[in-house]
Amino acid sequence: RRHKNINFSDRGMNLEQMINESNKYYRTKEIAVVHKKPTPVQIVKVDYPKRSRAVIKEAYFRQESTTDYNGVYKGYYLDFEAKETKNKTNFPLKNFHEHQIIHLAECLKQKGICFTIIGFTSLKRYFVTPASAIIKAWWTKDKSSLTLKEVEDWSIEIKSGFQPTLPYLKAIDSFISDRKIHDDK
Amino acid sequence: RRHKNINFSDRGMNLEQMINESNKYYRTKEIAVVHKKPTPVQIVKVDYPKRSRAVIKEAYFRQESTTDYNGVYKGYYLDFEAKETKNKTNFPLKNFHEHQIIHLAECLKQKGICFTIIGFTSLKRYFVTPASAIIKAWWTKDKSSLTLKEVEDWSIEIKSGFQPTLPYLKAIDSFISDRKIHDDK
Ligand SMILES: [Mg+2]
Ligand SMILES: [Mg+2]
Repeated sequence: RRHKNINFSDRGMNLEQMINESNKYYRTKEIAVVHKKPTPVQIVKVDYPKRSRAVIKEAYFRQESTTDYNGVYKGYYLDFEAKETKNKTNFPLKNFHEHQIIHLAECLKQKGICFTIIGFTSLKRYFVTPASAIIKAWWTKDKSSLTLKEVEDWSIEIKSGFQPTLPYLKAIDSFISDRKIHDDK
Repeated sequence: RRHKNINFSDRGMNLEQMINESNKYYRTKEIAVVHKKPTPVQIVKVDYPKRSRAVIKEAYFRQESTTDYNGVYKGYYLDFEAKETKNKTNFPLKNFHEHQIIHLAECLKQKGICFTIIGFTSLKRYFVTPASAIIKAWWTKDKSSLTLKEVEDWSIEIKSGFQPTLPYLKAIDSFISDRKIHDDK
């Protein structure tokens, strides 16, 4: 009640920070275990100074072969990529890399729950979109972006809140129900 | 038949290389998608030389908060840690770090399929052990190692082979059957 007029979606966090904070909440509450994968780095040279911890002196960024996040929720494998745009009307598909699209498709084949979280940061609107829709659009010739309308139609919108900051598992619950209905047919 | 007398387990690979190669095989054959997580690194200084890729000039190793591997197989979430020992009679429990034990327990609570792959490299024997057994032993006071006999009793042994090098999903199939029997009760 005290928090009524505070806009919790406006704490200066970017999408990744919102997701990381939500994952921390979910993990602490034993609701789900989802981690961000570390940036892959090829380490070439390491110094081991006396009485002090190892320092990496030469390393290079490696090509990522997966998405940003994966984890487990109610026995389901979750895999997703988070992307944000300042654009107010379109989400440019070039935000996704081919290896991410391929990875999502591979995980879908293994019956993972695969999706993206798209943030229209200027609008403060956040969408959980099934990977299948993104994969299809990505491979569509001459299609360079999704319109906001398409994202609205294909996704479940998530309102940012207090705890968790971005309650994206609500959307996943609805994906799971859909899947159960589908599996029971 | 032609391969009869060749020992494929003896190609100078360590356990991690055997698992990575097996994962590549499983992924290529669309059997499972399992990746090794990158080593977490805190990047402090990066140079961007002209006409050449970025060089990380100062970075530090961060504490890992998860296990080495996770992925998806038949819709199930897999999570595991691989450890090898040259010891022929015991597996020292200090090979596991507390954060790995905690992470496995957290994923178990979410109904992930959690396990370890223990390699007795001097014996060329490899075991898939349910995480529950490892967690229990790890928290047992005054218990510093598992005897080979305990590992044998609690695990499914995997014979290294040609393709995949370490067919550990065979053990997982049997964990999944056990779980189904349990769930049906
Ligand atoms: Mg991302
Ligand atoms: Mg390891």
